[in-house]
Amino acid sequence: MKPFIHEDFLLPTQSARELYHEYAVDEPIFDYHCHLSPKDLVENRSFHNLFEIWLEGDHYKWRAMRLNGVDERFCTGDADPKDKFRAFARTVPHTFRNPIYHWTHLELKRYFGIEELLDEHTADWIWEQANEKLTDPNLSAQGILSKFRVKMVGTTDDPTDTLEYHAKLRDSSCPAEVLPTFRPDRGILTENVENWNSWVDRLSAVCGNDIISFGDYKSCLSQRVDYFDQMGCKASDHGLLRCPLKIGNESEASVVFEKLRSAKSVSSEEREGFAGHVLAYLGELYHSKNWVMQLHLGAARNMNAAIFKQLGPDTGCDSIADVPQVDSLALLLGELSLRQRLPKTVLYNLNPRDNYAFATMCGNFFQKDVPCKVHYGSGWWFLDQWEGMMMQLNALSSLSLLSHFIGMITDSRSFMSYPRHEYFRRLLCNLLGEDLENGALPEQMKLQVGEMVRRICFQNASDYFQLSVS
Amino acid sequence: MKPFIHEDFLLPTQSARELYHEYAVDEPIFDYHCHLSPKDLVENRSFHNLFEIWLEGDHYKWRAMRLNGVDERFCTGDADPKDKFRAFARTVPHTFRNPIYHWTHLELKRYFGIEELLDEHTADWIWEQANEKLTDPNLSAQGILSKFRVKMVGTTDDPTDTLEYHAKLRDSSCPAEVLPTFRPDRGILTENVENWNSWVDRLSAVCGNDIISFGDYKSCLSQRVDYFDQMGCKASDHGLLRCPLKIGNESEASVVFEKLRSAKSVSSEEREGFAGHVLAYLGELYHSKNWVMQLHLGAARNMNAAIFKQLGPDTGCDSIADVPQVDSLALLLGELSLRQRLPKTVLYNLNPRDNYAFATMCGNFFQKDVPCKVHYGSGWWFLDQWEGMMMQLNALSSLSLLSHFIGMITDSRSFMSYPRHEYFRRLLCNLLGEDLENGALPEQMKLQVGEMVRRICFQNASDYFQLSVS
Amino acid sequence: MKPFIHEDFLLPTQSARELYHEYAVDEPIFDYHCHLSPKDLVENRSFHNLFEIWLEGDHYKWRAMRLNGVDERFCTGDADPKDKFRAFARTVPHTFRNPIYHWTHLELKRYFGIEELLDEHTADWIWEQANEKLTDPNLSAQGILSKFRVKMVGTTDDPTDTLEYHAKLRDSSCPAEVLPTFRPDRGILTENVENWNSWVDRLSAVCGNDIISFGDYKSCLSQRVDYFDQMGCKASDHGLLRCPLKIGNESEASVVFEKLRSAKSVSSEEREGFAGHVLAYLGELYHSKNWVMQLHLGAARNMNAAIFKQLGPDTGCDSIADVPQVDSLALLLGELSLRQRLPKTVLYNLNPRDNYAFATMCGNFFQKDVPCKVHYGSGWWFLDQWEGMMMQLNALSSLSLLSHFIGMITDSRSFMSYPRHEYFRRLLCNLLGEDLENGALPEQMKLQVGEMVRRICFQNASDYFQLSVS
Repeated sequence: MKPFIHEDFLLPTQSARELYHEYAVDEPIFDYHCHLSPKDLVENRSFHNLFEIWLEGDHYKWRAMRLNGVDERFCTGDADPKDKFRAFARTVPHTFRNPIYHWTHLELKRYFGIEELLDEHTADWIWEQANEKLTDPNLSAQGILSKFRVKMVGTTDDPTDTLEYHAKLRDSSCPAEVLPTFRPDRGILTENVENWNSWVDRLSAVCGNDIISFGDYKSCLSQRVDYFDQMGCKASDHGLLRCPLKIGNESEASVVFEKLRSAKSVSSEEREGFAGHVLAYLGELYHSKNWVMQLHLGAARNMNAAIFKQLGPDTGCDSIADVPQVDSLALLLGELSLRQRLPKTVLYNLNPRDNYAFATMCGNFFQKDVPCKVHYGSGWWFLDQWEGMMMQLNALSSLSLLSHFIGMITDSRSFMSYPRHEYFRRLLCNLLGEDLENGALPEQMKLQVGEMVRRICFQNASDYFQLSVS
Repeated sequence: MKPFIHEDFLLPTQSARELYHEYAVDEPIFDYHCHLSPKDLVENRSFHNLFEIWLEGDHYKWRAMRLNGVDERFCTGDADPKDKFRAFARTVPHTFRNPIYHWTHLELKRYFGIEELLDEHTADWIWEQANEKLTDPNLSAQGILSKFRVKMVGTTDDPTDTLEYHAKLRDSSCPAEVLPTFRPDRGILTENVENWNSWVDRLSAVCGNDIISFGDYKSCLSQRVDYFDQMGCKASDHGLLRCPLKIGNESEASVVFEKLRSAKSVSSEEREGFAGHVLAYLGELYHSKNWVMQLHLGAARNMNAAIFKQLGPDTGCDSIADVPQVDSLALLLGELSLRQRLPKTVLYNLNPRDNYAFATMCGNFFQKDVPCKVHYGSGWWFLDQWEGMMMQLNALSSLSLLSHFIGMITDSRSFMSYPRHEYFRRLLCNLLGEDLENGALPEQMKLQVGEMVRRICFQNASDYFQLSVS
Repeated sequence: MKPFIHEDFLLPTQSARELYHEYAVDEPIFDYHCHLSPKDLVENRSFHNLFEIWLEGDHYKWRAMRLNGVDERFCTGDADPKDKFRAFARTVPHTFRNPIYHWTHLELKRYFGIEELLDEHTADWIWEQANEKLTDPNLSAQGILSKFRVKMVGTTDDPTDTLEYHAKLRDSSCPAEVLPTFRPDRGILTENVENWNSWVDRLSAVCGNDIISFGDYKSCLSQRVDYFDQMGCKASDHGLLRCPLKIGNESEASVVFEKLRSAKSVSSEEREGFAGHVLAYLGELYHSKNWVMQLHLGAARNMNAAIFKQLGPDTGCDSIADVPQVDSLALLLGELSLRQRLPKTVLYNLNPRDNYAFATMCGNFFQKDVPCKVHYGSGWWFLDQWEGMMMQLNALSSLSLLSHFIGMITDSRSFMSYPRHEYFRRLLCNLLGEDLENGALPEQMKLQVGEMVRRICFQNASDYFQLSVS
């Protein structure tokens, strides 16, 4: 019997197999958005066991374990790492048809050569095997980048970050270009005024300038954009429920700024106008640097009030929102277009019901010689799975130009997520292979289809970010 | 030529056929939500003709006939039952690709052994054949439960119901456990203040207590929960456009209660706060009884103003709503979590555009040793059809744990709906069989996949409701 | 190697091929909604080159070219027609999986017999070949109608249009019945009060009556409905973001009318009430004429503020809206039902997330002997592509009666769009063929399935519009 993960995994047609093996498999990886730790990279972290490299901080696995009735001690709690691993192992056979089942076995195979299926019976043996393999320097942080031919890594960084590790990485022998990404959410979101003020204080400190006026604030933001740019940054990232409903003018935003700094209450409309003003201002800065602006829209955060109270944010109780997205998105992109300062933009959408609206929105904005100036980004978070990616690829294909797609990203905190690119590539070849076999794409174009696959794997992203790293 | 309904109906792959015949077909039925009449059950009703058992009160068939241009006389009107049947028979050949085409022929085959396809030419012959078979005691209300191995039936009951028939059923030889379900919509929805007041009066009467204060009201609700619990109730059910937008506190809700009782006008916000307060209060009671709280969300009711005026509610002019669901749902579930009183919950969603949001919402709530504490329930009403169920199963699989799914329910008023379980099982095996054949599930796991099928058919629901009935 | 466009293009199963070749291919075309120029038709326009017949005014092609980074000069600008064609040709190989790839090659084949795939290398040769063929009178405006056996063409016309070309067409030898469609958007939408007033002035002029009072306004609208009806009009058409949120009464609407005529500001609620009143009034008129009311809902217009400022409306920066549709739609249809004046209605929906809500809404309204009084119309604009049409057909099948579907329309400004009907028919046969082969439809019903295909291609629409034109 063939192992589960074999070379033609999920490639049912001959055309799919040809596309994958001839055009996709050898392409390097351009991972322009993830959450890896630059400290781990510069220190070339070694991992002591499968828990450290695989489970620590992985909210996908927490979610599956919780759904399986596993005690919180084994998720975010203080249980022994090996016992946490066992709890995960017991959960795996309950994940049939969930992406975790595929990811788990792809990852065990690609990192450790393990072909056994993970469950409570194989858990201890796999724990030992994998831990032993982890002593191999090829499985250190940098070793992994080499092994998977990762040429570019875009981390996610707060504007107040000193980027000290990125600085060190520049002088290191790290096999990939590791570049910071400017993520200023905390300066835009003001629901928690205390958090916002403490962030502004930190911004002030890192800039070495007092922030008294709104002008000071914008000037400090601009200073950090300059600094990030010097450090090689090519992109910003924004995580928002939706774009602001209003773009306040200078004086409106300034009034709100004063109120917020004095911890006075502001109305919802003021909040929106302030956020819109700052975001549009940042958009102009990004445009001046030729950065890519990434917008991650549609997450409903902290949906479980009890867990939020107990464990705080980012503990796995987020899900998919159902708010309107179109008008506020057009407001931001349209305003920047009017100012002739719309940066290159990637839109990531978390609710698949909005795939078509997002895919068509992208086509409203364009620029000579910049194919797909506004990109419809890959399936994200809950959509980073077979059906989610397929829906994204189909919407993008039918409504935009797949040919220019900038492809997959891990969006991950874990060094064990690189097989997500392989998974995506198999899906891409699967869809195109099927089209070739049923005549929806002309057989005589197989070579061109293959070249398109190759570009989507690596070159399109590299071109869009204007980075030569291969 | 094979009959339309044959043993491998809708099972195109070898793996699907194996899964179905080895694991699914022999499982009994646990029908935890339906609208059968307990009176019919206790009286072991016999049916005189195909109209009585099949057409009476079936809004799916009305809808199809109306779409086919059939006169209302033959739908809800006073036409002769046989003529109504003929009007339906003429409609059937127009239902290609509609679930009615499959249901009709599955039902004719399973209840009467009839393999002829229903149309105007076969109508009279089928009428005679079926009516003759209906004299068989195996096709009485209880006979049908035996025939389909239905082990549990959850009816749907108003809190003011005396449950006299349920009481009698306890002492009867009914082959299934028939348990009431607490459905207090009329005590929560206050748009029609007259209806609400007359319902409160009825509640007062059945409790034998005056309802003067809001405290009295809650106390009577609690009393009925106790009574339903004594009568074996394991679940509540709620049919709402969406969850309330606000959870009023005790004094707010009390003020609204006074206004409503005096038929004074209340604002929309007051209405929401009242509904939220009562629903959260009930949620606490359900938690204390270890009941399952079922929420049916997203129906747009009485969309045809003219028919509503003429025929009243529940006459087939309902459809799918497009209102936001996420925040109000999180408000209710989060509040109950904060109170540490969140009961087990099943969420049913009527608009498939919200499948992903619902499926991920479920994963925000969890409890040790309770797999899938909040379940994403099966495709409901307009989604109770091949495509609808497939979308629900795919969303659930990709975003939650299919392995713990509590499966299908008929949600029906008719004794002829049990083949819906068969239909669902064929789809389930179809999807999993395809996964096995294309390598998305490992061939070496076929046994475990089969066991999962078996559990989804019966055991998961039985475990979740903590009822041993097999 | 087979040419890309061969006789079994996109027909993978034997049953699909049989259905297509035996039932679909020979059916004539009933194109009840398009944007062809009646002037072109009456003058039997000849086209001098491929640009004129194929690219001029085609926003689908602009969108693809812009996404490909083509300079605006070659889209809406003043570049040489041949260079514009070359820019399009260079774009085509980037449209794999986009409908443009299929449309392009179907059109080249059906109009010019060209089987070469269009790209920058074949561009000049194809330009020459096609231009030469265009001298053939069979490729004049009327020649094309004959060639594709188009029996009915429903144009789209402003109520102030004199319909002079339609008048001339009546006396011409045009092979198709070319009938006007009443599209009064400019009289209903009042956001731009200047535009509205100038339209009302034009209405006044064409009617030869002063429009002082609201009564005058309605009387002029009624007069134009009468005139269109005399000119053979069978339908109205409305392009709206969504239906009005309110239906104002006579005196409310009259007040708003006065304000608008004096260019005074009106509130959003007043605007909605006015639009609702006028639309309901028109609906009654349509009912009295037995017209079909078409509602195109869900387009988000002019999303790129900069391009709107520069090029104006309808320049390709429209996309898919995400606003609520259900309640406002039920308000309009319900009100007309209450008045017993609901005309036959076709609902077109632009956001596929709302397919299910629309498909079920249709079933809320019905009339004896009028199958599917309210139709769920074919995939429109961004949904006029393989996936979009498939989603529409599946929703319609599962929730309504496919059997009565009135089928495809080109909705096009171009004389080269008739192969859209072929494309749709191939998809329809594809889906039904697959159902026959996997047993979801009974093999013994193949003839009836075939007859259904035949009716959907032509007869259903002809019956619904009550026009005998074949």
